[in-house]
Amino acid sequence: CVAQENARYINPFIGTDNMGHTFPGAVVPFGMVQLSPDTDTVPYSSGQGYNPDVYRYCAGYQYTDPTIVGFSHTHLHGTGHSDLGDFLLMPVTGEPKLNPGTATYPETGYRSRYDKNTEIAQAGYYAVTLTDYDIRAELTTTPRVGIHQYTFNGEQPGALILDMVHGIYNYDGKVIWSSVRVVNDTLVTGYRQTNGWARERFIYFAMSFSRPITEYSLRNEEKEIYGGFWRRWEMNRNFPERSGRKVKAWFKFGLKQSDKLLVKMAISPVSEQGALLNLKSEAPHGSFGLYRADAFRAWNTEANRLTIDAGDEQKVVFYTALYHSLIHPSIYADVDGRYRGLDHEIHQGDGFTNYSIFSLWDTFRALHPWLTLMYPGEASDMVNSMLAHYDQSAHSILPVWSHYANDNWCMIGYHAVPVIADAWVKGIRGFDGQKALKAMVRSASYRPYEGLGDYMDKGYVPAEKSGSSASVTLEYAYDDYTISRMAVALGDSAIAQAFRTRSQNFEHLF
Amino acid sequence: CVAQENARYINPFIGTDNMGHTFPGAVVPFGMVQLSPDTDTVPYSSGQGYNPDVYRYCAGYQYTDPTIVGFSHTHLHGTGHSDLGDFLLMPVTGEPKLNPGTATYPETGYRSRYDKNTEIAQAGYYAVTLTDYDIRAELTTTPRVGIHQYTFNGEQPGALILDMVHGIYNYDGKVIWSSVRVVNDTLVTGYRQTNGWARERFIYFAMSFSRPITEYSLRNEEKEIYGGFWRRWEMNRNFPERSGRKVKAWFKFGLKQSDKLLVKMAISPVSEQGALLNLKSEAPHGSFGLYRADAFRAWNTEANRLTIDAGDEQKVVFYTALYHSLIHPSIYADVDGRYRGLDHEIHQGDGFTNYSIFSLWDTFRALHPWLTLMYPGEASDMVNSMLAHYDQSAHSILPVWSHYANDNWCMIGYHAVPVIADAWVKGIRGFDGQKALKAMVRSASYRPYEGLGDYMDKGYVPAEKSGSSASVTLEYAYDDYTISRMAVALGDSAIAQAFRTRSQNFEHLF
Repeated sequence: CVAQENARYINPFIGTDNMGHTFPGAVVPFGMVQLSPDTDTVPYSSGQGYNPDVYRYCAGYQYTDPTIVGFSHTHLHGTGHSDLGDFLLMPVTGEPKLNPGTATYPETGYRSRYDKNTEIAQAGYYAVTLTDYDIRAELTTTPRVGIHQYTFNGEQPGALILDMVHGIYNYDGKVIWSSVRVVNDTLVTGYRQTNGWARERFIYFAMSFSRPITEYSLRNEEKEIYGGFWRRWEMNRNFPERSGRKVKAWFKFGLKQSDKLLVKMAISPVSEQGALLNLKSEAPHGSFGLYRADAFRAWNTEANRLTIDAGDEQKVVFYTALYHSLIHPSIYADVDGRYRGLDHEIHQGDGFTNYSIFSLWDTFRALHPWLTLMYPGEASDMVNSMLAHYDQSAHSILPVWSHYANDNWCMIGYHAVPVIADAWVKGIRGFDGQKALKAMVRSASYRPYEGLGDYMDKGYVPAEKSGSSASVTLEYAYDDYTISRMAVALGDSAIAQAFRTRSQNFEHLF
Repeated sequence: CVAQENARYINPFIGTDNMGHTFPGAVVPFGMVQLSPDTDTVPYSSGQGYNPDVYRYCAGYQYTDPTIVGFSHTHLHGTGHSDLGDFLLMPVTGEPKLNPGTATYPETGYRSRYDKNTEIAQAGYYAVTLTDYDIRAELTTTPRVGIHQYTFNGEQPGALILDMVHGIYNYDGKVIWSSVRVVNDTLVTGYRQTNGWARERFIYFAMSFSRPITEYSLRNEEKEIYGGFWRRWEMNRNFPERSGRKVKAWFKFGLKQSDKLLVKMAISPVSEQGALLNLKSEAPHGSFGLYRADAFRAWNTEANRLTIDAGDEQKVVFYTALYHSLIHPSIYADVDGRYRGLDHEIHQGDGFTNYSIFSLWDTFRALHPWLTLMYPGEASDMVNSMLAHYDQSAHSILPVWSHYANDNWCMIGYHAVPVIADAWVKGIRGFDGQKALKAMVRSASYRPYEGLGDYMDKGYVPAEKSGSSASVTLEYAYDDYTISRMAVALGDSAIAQAFRTRSQNFEHLF
């Protein structure tokens, strides 16, 4: 018998053109790393207000773009606003440049043209040939560690760029702070803290190389008001620590023609030590092929759970849609269960793996009901993550849009509520139902939240209190109905009755 | 018999005029909090280079200044460059203003004139009457918790200002980021991250009030490029979380004439939870008088260890000098022993209390030999803190100037070396001698450090390699001699001989 390999039908290029907002790079189911090429540096703002062109770059990639800026480790999938693009690496040859250059004149910076015919995207794998440097770049990943294999086919000596400033929906000042440290000749750690859709996001890394660094340069391109006594050092060459708002670096490894460089970059929401733990735990060996096979197998396991009787084209659509349904929410915790909470503190996941990226207005209708059916364990972890968010919230409410230890407050409703109710009525019992009900009622009763005080008093959100008052009223009423259902299941008839009544509020719109 | 009270001779005003660079506020021996009035807002730079007037404000206070801006919790004592001034509180009356105003026109901001005749500074206690508001302000402290008692004698309703932007040696952008959260009606937490002399310093707080907050406003005065979806909230009134680069706040408590407000602000190098732990551990009760008595007793215990036969004026000089000798180095750890390391990671003090503020070029000659004689336990902790710094250093060297999880690299020499050698030869054995010797040799052999490669090759630091080449050579030679002594004590004759030889390098200057 031939092993079933439904993951072969996954085509990560689907949705990467125009406004699909998907990325073609490597990810595993619910993985914290989404390692993917970024094809431009279009900013969210150049300081003069919103730049509408940025919307094309929600996932960092446009299929028809002529150049690749580099490969970064975090990407949002399917969102209509964006962030991330953390820790961009770019392999180059010749004397390293630290600016990305432009799409029109890529040779002015480190970016490269690429050969579209050489580009491959499969479940857990991406590859491309960077023609300006004659480098074959291959990417795969574990849940928390991005794996890069670069083959330097050009004649010029190779190097690696690390750009701590690069980001999606970027603008001057988006990087609040960053830091890079060369720990030894095969290990570099660092972190950055960013503003933007997530107001205050920290992300750490630990990066190891298959060859020792022979020479490196960490720079800060910021114009510093305060220079201080660091000036005593010769900081631009082989100086092992650099912090600031515009940190960039290059590393050389004595790379000659045909040499390969394997780079493993672990990320962490907690600390550099957390990233190092993830690196050691998930990426202990140096075989790119094995990591790639593991990533494919992870997708294949999920794809093989569903068999459909259809032609290949339909299978591609189906299994790619399945793939797209298992990217977010994403794990947001180190292998030891520690994670950064909404209160900026480090927490230990207590009997659950912490998840983030709950874009709930988008996902309460279809994605979460799908997950509660097919992934009850993960769905339970997600509810526990929402309850932790509630515990850590300055408002004591459930997430509206959980965005890596932030709530970005995007869109309307309190749609964690139907997600939790759905999990409970489908029999998922991995979380505390009474606590969940309390959190749901609290979230549905937080008067400062968009028109909610009026909704509670009047039975509707007045148009003068919200630009989407009808939608808001409708969605609150829907959410209220699910609280009622949850309360019935828990035998709390008072709450059940109260929210059953509230759920009729949509009638006030007519 | 009458209890000896030598702490009565301590006069914290000594050195507060002109260039003494001392502060008059409340501190306990080696305490992490130095709670003291700041009398102006002179910046380090307004963006056009160094402002020499700032030098008068190294400790935040000038005796003859006419106004007090507020009371902040961290101050350097005796330094010739500066930083800190974290978490400024100012009690006010009437409608709160969030800008500090100017010395000439204090009424344009929250600062106040004060009555010099009402100002008291004693060991662990400071008090003043703020005449613009008719508020009596009293300060005392525990090691990690500043205690404020404000008596509102004016007719206007009282309020409290929290200015997260205020700082010593300030400039635009010095506050990298800050955050304030109202946890409940008597508890506020937050943190800030600053640039400057310490390139990347984090400090957290937890602040409790003796009366519930009735109304508050957290503001961010930054011009934000990215506003995002926080705009859905009414953020300026009773909204419990605010982050940004220019965060300020006011709190009201329904204060009427003659009401008192007790404020306890704990700080932490680790986290808001760490600050809360410090608050609960060190400041469990609400009696300002008891905290004040405890702080005085702490100083009295130290002062009573030394009895001198002298007149009162000499006693004032003597005991105030004693007092000044026990302010820095300072504890830099929470009550549970956790602290922020030089590697940005959170560490547990393993059998020692972590210290920082090692201004070693200033202190290796007299202060540390004094501490090794009189405070061997603390001196041992300090050496262990230096060895932890060495472990956490990207350069694997001992501190030059340990500045709250940073090395600010100020001044010359590797003067942790003589401090450690002095501790060892005086018989202090609370640290690992072999490890210490290794760290000393490593620090004395780190070629990129100021002229050290040349010194090792040529026996002197050439003038073209250092603007203070003669001093540097002399001090390296001195430090080398102490390595030799330490090696002799440890029976390592090879190191002893090598550094004995190196210690003769000063002869090359002649």
